[in-house]
Amino acid sequence: MHLPALAKQEDRAVPATKTIITLADGRSLIYFDEKPADRTATDLRDLPDTATHSQIRWDPVQDDWVVIASHRQARTFLPPADECPLCPSRDGRHTEIPASDYDVVVFDNRFPSLSVDTAAAGSSDGLFLSRPGNGKCEVVCFTSDHDSSFAKLSPERAETVIEAWVDRTRELSTVDGVEQIFPFENRGQEIGVTLAHPHGQIYAYPFLPPPVRQMLASARRHRESHGGCLFCDLLHSEQKAGERIVVEGEHWTAFVPYAARWPYEIHLYARRHVPDLPSLTAAERADLARVYLDVLRRFDSLFSTPTPYIAAWMQAPVRVDRDLAHLHLKLFTIRRAEGKLKYLAGSESGIGVFINDVTPEQAAARLRGD
Amino acid sequence: MHLPALAKQEDRAVPATKTIITLADGRSLIYFDEKPADRTATDLRDLPDTATHSQIRWDPVQDDWVVIASHRQARTFLPPADECPLCPSRDGRHTEIPASDYDVVVFDNRFPSLSVDTAAAGSSDGLFLSRPGNGKCEVVCFTSDHDSSFAKLSPERAETVIEAWVDRTRELSTVDGVEQIFPFENRGQEIGVTLAHPHGQIYAYPFLPPPVRQMLASARRHRESHGGCLFCDLLHSEQKAGERIVVEGEHWTAFVPYAARWPYEIHLYARRHVPDLPSLTAAERADLARVYLDVLRRFDSLFSTPTPYIAAWMQAPVRVDRDLAHLHLKLFTIRRAEGKLKYLAGSESGIGVFINDVTPEQAAARLRGD
Repeated sequence: MHLPALAKQEDRAVPATKTIITLADGRSLIYFDEKPADRTATDLRDLPDTATHSQIRWDPVQDDWVVIASHRQARTFLPPADECPLCPSRDGRHTEIPASDYDVVVFDNRFPSLSVDTAAAGSSDGLFLSRPGNGKCEVVCFTSDHDSSFAKLSPERAETVIEAWVDRTRELSTVDGVEQIFPFENRGQEIGVTLAHPHGQIYAYPFLPPPVRQMLASARRHRESHGGCLFCDLLHSEQKAGERIVVEGEHWTAFVPYAARWPYEIHLYARRHVPDLPSLTAAERADLARVYLDVLRRFDSLFSTPTPYIAAWMQAPVRVDRDLAHLHLKLFTIRRAEGKLKYLAGSESGIGVFINDVTPEQAAARLRGD
Repeated sequence: MHLPALAKQEDRAVPATKTIITLADGRSLIYFDEKPADRTATDLRDLPDTATHSQIRWDPVQDDWVVIASHRQARTFLPPADECPLCPSRDGRHTEIPASDYDVVVFDNRFPSLSVDTAAAGSSDGLFLSRPGNGKCEVVCFTSDHDSSFAKLSPERAETVIEAWVDRTRELSTVDGVEQIFPFENRGQEIGVTLAHPHGQIYAYPFLPPPVRQMLASARRHRESHGGCLFCDLLHSEQKAGERIVVEGEHWTAFVPYAARWPYEIHLYARRHVPDLPSLTAAERADLARVYLDVLRRFDSLFSTPTPYIAAWMQAPVRVDRDLAHLHLKLFTIRRAEGKLKYLAGSESGIGVFINDVTPEQAAARLRGD
């Protein structure tokens, strides 16, 4: 299932133009423009400051952190299309984006789970340990077209989104205390999306999430016992087995993992051992745009309606063990069959054991279109 | 929020009568009867054998096991009430339970995720490691009343359910290769329940689930550094703090954990350091029935409709580290506000970081009825 070689592999010569403006309540917004555009429009809204009270609390049994963000209960919830805050400002209606059109924009979430400005304090009292919920939560709008989706973007636009991910990973890595940068997309109401406009998010966490710690521990153990990179070896094993490979690009390989947790799950691995998105070459980014669009379109052709999904970037941590990590994306859906969802019930949410009703080999065959 | 002392604390003198029968396809069914009952009814269905192809596969990155159970896609899905397979057999309609009435019954799931009879083989090839999905999945019907719920059971009936949990934990612990016994209940369609009749389940896993391993590792570290039981110390800390306590019974304490992951979450701890349900005294079981019913009723009074929930028993493993564990139940809902659900989206499902919009102190106050 190799993608046909590009007629001419043109790595995009001119990067997007980046323009930073400040919204009415002091938040930043960044335009990533593919062509020159007028970015002088200002935010005309009378926007009240939103207080942020994020705190992170330590769970001494599971030895991890939970974010308590009580100010978010009032956040915008499934507004009608004509009140969408992610559409451009048009016809006298003012949204989060002051301009009347845009390519890609990134801005601070108005209701962030983590914030450098959180009003919450930390404390330490025996087994009760908390810290301010410092970090960042950004929104990434992929297109001004409310009714589009990532899968429908042009390869050029997908490259602009990747450029935004690279830019934000670099910038957010410089924020005090940030340990992990996590670009992701939730797509579909079934997954809990509260705004229908095509968008993703980037979280900058002030700690290493448990699956990242586990991933690094496994990679360290593998290197000590086998001498190489766990992810490189996994990739080669999948390529050798072949039956779970979905797409092979020039620089990226998409496969259903051997122990997939979700009914349809694809892991998209950079073939070169790179830690994160900023480490990609222009050619690798261009191929990522093609392969990712291909994979998303395969997801959308599984069922009669667009597939709800979560796309999650696993990057190296900002500060530690960067050589152990290997950039990859996890893409999965909770839809297990037409009209049926996979729920995280007792076994998954209660005791952490995933039960998958679709074999990874069947899933890969369907995604290849065998 | 102490429960009033019982007028007379009568521990149930006579245990339920246990009668084991065999269903048409060879599965076992156990009646737990509070009063003498005729259990001679036989399963008159012409029930085809269901092949089970469960396999467990190792994930070398997360270092845990995933259950692949492809035969389950065809399982019964939200049947109308007059086709409920968990109602007694009446009026010529034959269900899973041959008798025309029952108190509590336990039987092998017809579509098990794990089975001692699985047809799947195991294999080992480098990073690809699998084993047969050996284990057990049992269904526990709490009442013959289709429209009831656990919260509506009498204390006597709740004690019979606890007796069934104790019995099954003992019995399933003797099954070859079983490492962890997990009684749980999924309640509500929002949580993915496919049968509305009030019932729970018991899974017997052939490995230690990751949260259990982490719980034991944390308990070991705590004992080495502090000399005592992590859970006993947590309980005392919560009792001293007070603000997150919901109910104190004679032998059980219910509190919202300091780092709660879910909008409304209660941990119900045995006050005595006991590893599992079979270790409880009659007095502890009687108090558990009262406190658990009290807590479930508080959950159901949170919103205008019954609260969807997951109830998950954390017991000591069957074979290892039994002294480190401390019996407790986790009860939580995915409903974060009237008409709104907490979804496990990118942060939770993608990278394992929970974001809770309700502070544990607010949740405890609402559950106490302050």
